Amino acid sequence: MSATVAAYTAAALAERFGLRLHGDSNHVVTGVGTLATATAGQLSFLANPRYRGQLGATSASVVVLREADVEHCPAIALVAADPYVAFARIAALFEPKSERTAGIHATAVVADDAVIAATASIGPHASIGARSQIGTGAVIGPGCVVGDDCVVGDDCELVARVTLVTRVRLGQRVLVHPGAVIGADGFGIAMDHGHWIKVPQLGGVRIGDDCEIGANTTIDRGALGDTVLEDDVRLDNQIQIGHNVRIGAHTAMAGCSAVAGSASIGRHCLIGGGAGILGHLEVCDRVVVTAMTLVTHSILEPGEYSSGTPLMDNRSWRKSAARFKQLDTLARRINAGDKE
Amino acid sequence: MSATVAAYTAAALAERFGLRLHGDSNHVVTGVGTLATATAGQLSFLANPRYRGQLGATSASVVVLREADVEHCPAIALVAADPYVAFARIAALFEPKSERTAGIHATAVVADDAVIAATASIGPHASIGARSQIGTGAVIGPGCVVGDDCVVGDDCELVARVTLVTRVRLGQRVLVHPGAVIGADGFGIAMDHGHWIKVPQLGGVRIGDDCEIGANTTIDRGALGDTVLEDDVRLDNQIQIGHNVRIGAHTAMAGCSAVAGSASIGRHCLIGGGAGILGHLEVCDRVVVTAMTLVTHSILEPGEYSSGTPLMDNRSWRKSAARFKQLDTLARRINAGDKE
Amino acid sequence: MSATVAAYTAAALAERFGLRLHGDSNHVVTGVGTLATATAGQLSFLANPRYRGQLGATSASVVVLREADVEHCPAIALVAADPYVAFARIAALFEPKSERTAGIHATAVVADDAVIAATASIGPHASIGARSQIGTGAVIGPGCVVGDDCVVGDDCELVARVTLVTRVRLGQRVLVHPGAVIGADGFGIAMDHGHWIKVPQLGGVRIGDDCEIGANTTIDRGALGDTVLEDDVRLDNQIQIGHNVRIGAHTAMAGCSAVAGSASIGRHCLIGGGAGILGHLEVCDRVVVTAMTLVTHSILEPGEYSSGTPLMDNRSWRKSAARFKQLDTLARRINAGDKE
Repeated sequence: MSATVAAYTAAALAERFGLRLHGDSNHVVTGVGTLATATAGQLSFLANPRYRGQLGATSASVVVLREADVEHCPAIALVAADPYVAFARIAALFEPKSERTAGIHATAVVADDAVIAATASIGPHASIGARSQIGTGAVIGPGCVVGDDCVVGDDCELVARVTLVTRVRLGQRVLVHPGAVIGADGFGIAMDHGHWIKVPQLGGVRIGDDCEIGANTTIDRGALGDTVLEDDVRLDNQIQIGHNVRIGAHTAMAGCSAVAGSASIGRHCLIGGGAGILGHLEVCDRVVVTAMTLVTHSILEPGEYSSGTPLMDNRSWRKSAARFKQLDTLARRINAGDKE
Repeated sequence: MSATVAAYTAAALAERFGLRLHGDSNHVVTGVGTLATATAGQLSFLANPRYRGQLGATSASVVVLREADVEHCPAIALVAADPYVAFARIAALFEPKSERTAGIHATAVVADDAVIAATASIGPHASIGARSQIGTGAVIGPGCVVGDDCVVGDDCELVARVTLVTRVRLGQRVLVHPGAVIGADGFGIAMDHGHWIKVPQLGGVRIGDDCEIGANTTIDRGALGDTVLEDDVRLDNQIQIGHNVRIGAHTAMAGCSAVAGSASIGRHCLIGGGAGILGHLEVCDRVVVTAMTLVTHSILEPGEYSSGTPLMDNRSWRKSAARFKQLDTLARRINAGDKE
Repeated sequence: MSATVAAYTAAALAERFGLRLHGDSNHVVTGVGTLATATAGQLSFLANPRYRGQLGATSASVVVLREADVEHCPAIALVAADPYVAFARIAALFEPKSERTAGIHATAVVADDAVIAATASIGPHASIGARSQIGTGAVIGPGCVVGDDCVVGDDCELVARVTLVTRVRLGQRVLVHPGAVIGADGFGIAMDHGHWIKVPQLGGVRIGDDCEIGANTTIDRGALGDTVLEDDVRLDNQIQIGHNVRIGAHTAMAGCSAVAGSASIGRHCLIGGGAGILGHLEVCDRVVVTAMTLVTHSILEPGEYSSGTPLMDNRSWRKSAARFKQLDTLARRINAGDKE
């Protein structure tokens, strides 16, 4: 699709990424693919043991893999301590980049007192609010809305149709995917004589360097003080982050997970898809929460946590589910039996 | 709301859709409604037995129903083997259509090398990227962003504010609802000495003919190779489809369900609302997954599958939940008791 | 960030909101903050007992609290029966308001027969469809799409990038956050000889006064008749409301919850985050559903309802989960043992 084709010899890749080479050092790599689909001239990788069976039959010319897999490799081998990391770095060489023109598109609307770096690119139909700043090399894609009092750091990219509502600060190199909404009102309501009244959301959102925010993810701004993502936080699509949440550096959350207001998540945590974390609690560093688990209380010890029941055929599940309702009675009978 | 009113005699509807008519063939139908709300001149239907009790009192002039219900019908009857299907076809005659003007709106931004069919309609504030193609009769609604290297097939409709990020190919007659994001980066990250590095997402998305994609649904593009929806896949709102997922033809997924990366779902499956399917697994054809179930391993036999616990009042639930934590201990006691 | 700073004496606040004052009535309040972060000149509050421990060390000059907490308050005290409600009202005085200019932005696209109140504000890149009406004082933010035949009541605000698809009626003072999609096609499909056919969605959406709709929330329009939110319904982010759902007045739903088609939710209900409510059922008034609960049948008694299992460390959870699959067998053994 792109006009020019990247091409690197196996030796060049080995040298550039510090990998050990087995085989023809002059072979030219012009693309990447999976073990099953890569063709001659392409480079593949073996990281997940689940795919080891595909190694022998691969048509890839070069495979990035661990030392232990070299003997089974029918292609040129590049040996890496972590083949997935090495592959990620190599694959970036072959990524087509869409051309971005620095400057403000004729259809964009920029407030008089917004400050746009000369090397920033503001796309079609974008709008930039009062007092907002867009850093050097930053890309504001088509249809993005940057509200008032926002800061978009250097080399950030808002891909398309992203909204920063107000008082949102992005660090450097933050990548935000389409449809994400950052800085909307937190969900603050108070019941007053049978009617809800709205609690003003006066804070903002602070996002550190090197974060990634998935498509249609929402991060509310703080009620008082800010909602905070530290550096290198990685959020997948359709994640919901409530007001005044804090997420520690290097934590990654999978799609559709959610964190309720004022919860604090540690560093280097992994939150599974669809998991929920209730508000006003604390999760310490290096916690793994499995998919669709509900975290109802603070987690103070690193480790893996779960809730839910296993997958079953519906007929069997109905029987277990019916018994779940009787569990206390059943347990009392067991306990009574033990005492007899 | 539309200026002209559609009108059909009962006989004309019977003939057009191959239905048997009981009653006044000349009665004119000018609209449709539910059994409970339809008024004289309107047509209704009885498909779900849950609503059978409403048949006797309906004010509808015509009712589409099964043979067995004719004797209880106080109105003109149109007999169908599948009343819901017949009703769907009839109701389409009464659907107001918003007027679409072929051509490119003055506020749209179209890349020089994009190819737009003469009969396509590109709405206000839409943008079309480099090398993308828009087919005959296709509608790109207001605020849509079509990125680079996309193909929108004939008679597709992107209702409004849809994003096709890059390398997205839609077949014919694909309907995409507002806020959907197709072709964003898959969630590919690799941990490298305490920091995440991004794994480039070099693939695309291929969507077959006659698919429907709900509002704010996200479908990521493949890391290597494509994310694929075969023909006639129907996705409700706020669904998340990870990179390199494959969904078989005629499968329907209800709102808020999610499929993690590299999972493969069969044909003619029904995935319930809020259900989750983990990555790198396989679900065979004709599988039904009930609402909010988590699929943690491959499903190789057709049938219905579930997880979770039944709805209970909170006080009772707390007791069962507390016992769930003791289940292994309780089971050991039972087993020990059996051995005595 | 705003140029002018609001300032009120403690006495003025006491009088304006009917609160009893302990301490220096002339002290000037220029902002609000949490007990932990407020500085001199700022007002804070103590409502959640969880934060009582922070009262003694607060640097806030004024604290809104209950009578019982006055004696422990190191600052000027404003006594309220409900400190959270009182705080919400006071904080609104300090909320920065972005300037809205009445009129239609030069980049907006408005249908010839749309009716826009003179005091309404239509933002950049917004589009307004045929026959739609925008009320006095209403704000249609940047990038919003209002389709055909919609009504936006007086003093509504569509913050940014909101879509009202068609036949959507908002009452007065409705606040809709970015990315919300209201009035998309309900998910109506019928299986016909192995292919899905689409069931036309002919209804609309009616939303009462004083409702709030969160970011990226989706509310489908009715198939026949309307989807309805009564007055003062409060929806958080990423909620999914199916076609023909009805939600009673003063009900609040937390993020990522979902209601399937034709369900009816009562008044004054509280639906927890990630909870799911199946279709074609009824939930009566004053029901609380806890987070991530699945409501599978009608609830006819007020109270609190739950499903799911408790959070456990993964190793313990695996044991309980394995036993869950054996529950029916275990229960039969217990019952058999009892009979012996």
